[in-house]
Amino acid sequence: MTPSMPASRNPNDWLLLCRTVRFGDTDAAGVMHFHQLLRWCHEAYEESLERFGITAAAVFPSPGCSQAVALPIVHCSADYLAPLVCGDPLAIQLDPQRLDPSNFEVRYCFRSGERNVARGLTRHLAIRSDTRQRCALPAAVNRWLEVSAIGQGIRPL
Amino acid sequence: MTPSMPASRNPNDWLLLCRTVRFGDTDAAGVMHFHQLLRWCHEAYEESLERFGITAAAVFPSPGCSQAVALPIVHCSADYLAPLVCGDPLAIQLDPQRLDPSNFEVRYCFRSGERNVARGLTRHLAIRSDTRQRCALPAAVNRWLEVSAIGQGIRPL
Amino acid sequence: MTPSMPASRNPNDWLLLCRTVRFGDTDAAGVMHFHQLLRWCHEAYEESLERFGITAAAVFPSPGCSQAVALPIVHCSADYLAPLVCGDPLAIQLDPQRLDPSNFEVRYCFRSGERNVARGLTRHLAIRSDTRQRCALPAAVNRWLEVSAIGQGIRPL
Amino acid sequence: MTPSMPASRNPNDWLLLCRTVRFGDTDAAGVMHFHQLLRWCHEAYEESLERFGITAAAVFPSPGCSQAVALPIVHCSADYLAPLVCGDPLAIQLDPQRLDPSNFEVRYCFRSGERNVARGLTRHLAIRSDTRQRCALPAAVNRWLEVSAIGQGIRPL
Repeated sequence: MTPSMPASRNPNDWLLLCRTVRFGDTDAAGVMHFHQLLRWCHEAYEESLERFGITAAAVFPSPGCSQAVALPIVHCSADYLAPLVCGDPLAIQLDPQRLDPSNFEVRYCFRSGERNVARGLTRHLAIRSDTRQRCALPAAVNRWLEVSAIGQGIRPL
Repeated sequence: MTPSMPASRNPNDWLLLCRTVRFGDTDAAGVMHFHQLLRWCHEAYEESLERFGITAAAVFPSPGCSQAVALPIVHCSADYLAPLVCGDPLAIQLDPQRLDPSNFEVRYCFRSGERNVARGLTRHLAIRSDTRQRCALPAAVNRWLEVSAIGQGIRPL
Repeated sequence: MTPSMPASRNPNDWLLLCRTVRFGDTDAAGVMHFHQLLRWCHEAYEESLERFGITAAAVFPSPGCSQAVALPIVHCSADYLAPLVCGDPLAIQLDPQRLDPSNFEVRYCFRSGERNVARGLTRHLAIRSDTRQRCALPAAVNRWLEVSAIGQGIRPL
Repeated sequence: MTPSMPASRNPNDWLLLCRTVRFGDTDAAGVMHFHQLLRWCHEAYEESLERFGITAAAVFPSPGCSQAVALPIVHCSADYLAPLVCGDPLAIQLDPQRLDPSNFEVRYCFRSGERNVARGLTRHLAIRSDTRQRCALPAAVNRWLEVSAIGQGIRPL
């Protein structure tokens, strides 16, 4: 396997993302409402693909442009470690892992300043869009998984 | 025009709907976050069609079942008259009006107990799904508009 | 322990709930977008408390009415077993369980017609709203947990 | 009036913002679901304040830090000019205007590439958080409105 990305490319360019807690993400307890975190996870996954160089059109369906392969989420989970309030800055570290030729998962670690504030997980299954039968992951997603795994291997911890 | 619905049918069966403000609808100010109201409007419109006897599959696309005609919203608005807190019961009165052969709008009046708490409006345009060109409203939607207009004429105010 | 509810009361009154997949719950793949399920879980939990006889104001904060105890979610998960399209009717069976004096979890089983379509889980921790220190569950929530557990014991499976 | 910001500061720093349409923003018609646009408007307003130098904590409530003044939205509207698909980049131009000492509105113009794709409007009323009576806008928000108005006067159109 020869990934098309140079080894020197910094994986943090596409695996370390930022966002800010917005007012509409909170609830009447004054803190982030729990299911918004899963939305943030998916948006981080989309931004990661985009920064890596994979266009949304290559992975996500749109009218007149349906992909042969869909990547529905079959499982997700989240752990909430600290309350988040409107305006809190977030750093999101993604850790994508291929599980088998038709499955991958992404782990998301949310930090705000020095605090670990939440963790998320999404597990994706490749299926043919027409038959909904399990199939191989798209080549572009495989490349993102492979280069991310290499990048993480050399990531100082 | 002979609507297929008997004149005696009570329009409140499909034009007067109920829901409850949920915790995730609120924000850190303790009250309903504004854009949730527009979500409630669309869900009330869907429930109204359903109660009238029009299946979702007849109006809304799903995989392997795309309608010839789509009904995108081209304009919406909302007015907020009173704060809403988690648990508040809502009565939603719908007032659908055909504007021309390819356009209709729905006005939504939200009450909680004796209070008028909010108003919403969605305006929909019929377009061909393939060309996105303006076209005539689907027959089922026309019937809902016509019978609703008759029903409202006899509604005691 | 003497629950205030008569033993003959049918737990399905508050543990078996219904909703319909709405258009705004779907994404461009044509099916329910995954994080909406977690929203449905929380709304089902709120509706269950309400049907059991616990007002939202007794559990959820609102302006000028903050509870001594908050019940933030510390963990959630979901499994997606089948795609859901707009208009699909859902039956949601709740299975609440006390884990210890300050923790409970709710399992949610989603069926559409004869199909098991999804499962959800939310885990809640009781904390004092002022100090955010762990504390005992509110009495009303304890009663809901206890009567639900009895009800499930006698539920035919 | 002496705004605290130097006249040379570029208003586009806080009045011209960017975001990308995400998969969860779309619906089964394949395009952005209408009420997400109002969410984007509010998030753009929050980001604008933040970039201008006003912290979220100065304007939005959080636990143990409630502002004397709240700025609820009393009206909003949106116009949808073109369909938006997952991955579309958006440029959002904000045009905030004070209407009277206790009211302001923000107009949002959404462009994607060369296309005008949508417009939004939110109208905000300053009220005292304790009595919910109308009051003067907070000084920080007034400054943002004033400097934005000056900036727009010199903006090349």
